[in-house]
Amino acid sequence: MVNYPTGSLINFNDGQTRDLINKTKNKKVARHKDTVFSDRGMNLEQQINESNNYYLSKNIAVVHKKPTPVQIVKVDYPKRSRAVIKEAYFRQASTTDYNGVYKGYYLDFEAKETRNKQSFPLKNFHEHQIIHLSQCLRQQGICFTIIRFATLNRYFVTPASFIVDAWYAWKKKDKSSISLIQLSENSIEIKSSYRPTLPYLQAVDKIIERSEVKNDR
Amino acid sequence: MVNYPTGSLINFNDGQTRDLINKTKNKKVARHKDTVFSDRGMNLEQQINESNNYYLSKNIAVVHKKPTPVQIVKVDYPKRSRAVIKEAYFRQASTTDYNGVYKGYYLDFEAKETRNKQSFPLKNFHEHQIIHLSQCLRQQGICFTIIRFATLNRYFVTPASFIVDAWYAWKKKDKSSISLIQLSENSIEIKSSYRPTLPYLQAVDKIIERSEVKNDR
Repeated sequence: MVNYPTGSLINFNDGQTRDLINKTKNKKVARHKDTVFSDRGMNLEQQINESNNYYLSKNIAVVHKKPTPVQIVKVDYPKRSRAVIKEAYFRQASTTDYNGVYKGYYLDFEAKETRNKQSFPLKNFHEHQIIHLSQCLRQQGICFTIIRFATLNRYFVTPASFIVDAWYAWKKKDKSSISLIQLSENSIEIKSSYRPTLPYLQAVDKIIERSEVKNDR
Repeated sequence: MVNYPTGSLINFNDGQTRDLINKTKNKKVARHKDTVFSDRGMNLEQQINESNNYYLSKNIAVVHKKPTPVQIVKVDYPKRSRAVIKEAYFRQASTTDYNGVYKGYYLDFEAKETRNKQSFPLKNFHEHQIIHLSQCLRQQGICFTIIRFATLNRYFVTPASFIVDAWYAWKKKDKSSISLIQLSENSIEIKSSYRPTLPYLQAVDKIIERSEVKNDR
């Protein structure tokens, strides 16, 4: 069996399509008005992208956001101008959004925002993200999530093992969200800053330290 | 300055657009006829994808091909069917095609095919791929290329440091290609197989061994 990279096409009404549609919409809005929210008008994705650019430019780490997977069906090649994709569909991603390398360590993470003030709903994580984080943990990757409580302006870097356990517990009828208190006890809190906008590698250093002690690598 | 992920759009007549167009065309062809070439009708990309699926299913490594970066401009949301992208453009990639994690090591590589029999032309590597490989090497990633001589049915896994040096030497008016002899002397040759189709991690183990000796990690 040849596995073509066409993959599975996602349904029109599942959570991920909604996310993708919202992302596309947000981008359009963001392009028109520059500074609407706090933190220089950036959403979490923009803060992370800017931080990654900073880390890259200073030779500190190489981390990139993965492109949205798209199934291209029809492309036009007008003369004297660039190729235009005329028909394409969103595809189911099979990984998290970010990965890269830092001091020889493989980093893998997913970033999420909530406007809640008391808790983080676990349904924000999709099954493929949880599975991918588990797979990378098994390969000794440094895996985590970055969760932003937008209205509180608080940021938590959480080891993926905690999130994965909470997610599977929810699927077995345990609580459907993580309380803010529980999250803060199991995370490293970071503050948004100037350069980089979100210095998440400070928290990664602590996660690496702990995993070194555990794995005696 | 907010860095939107829109990035730079690529020109219609550069090498990368041609590659993308060829990829799209090849995929269409491949979907219609199943077994045309040797090695069960797979091109190098398909062989690597299948090998990655095998490694993933056996908990040996987590390596994925990155999606082609696309700038989405217009999306239709027809009722009762999935969202359709109606206008989009190819964007300049900023990384290689493959990365992942294996036994705690960050892997990063690019795969290329040639129908030449005597040498591999360095113009097959784009500048952004060479820059990205250099950046990942600096972060102690395990970086390499997989080059297939299609007509000879030979596969070489080459440490990225060798390719990067040859590429920059070419830019300084040195030779524009690597001879087959030179490549075989500086690579680990692998054979296509059954499970996985292309057991490239055998070569990666050797690259890791050498880099351990050098870095005393």
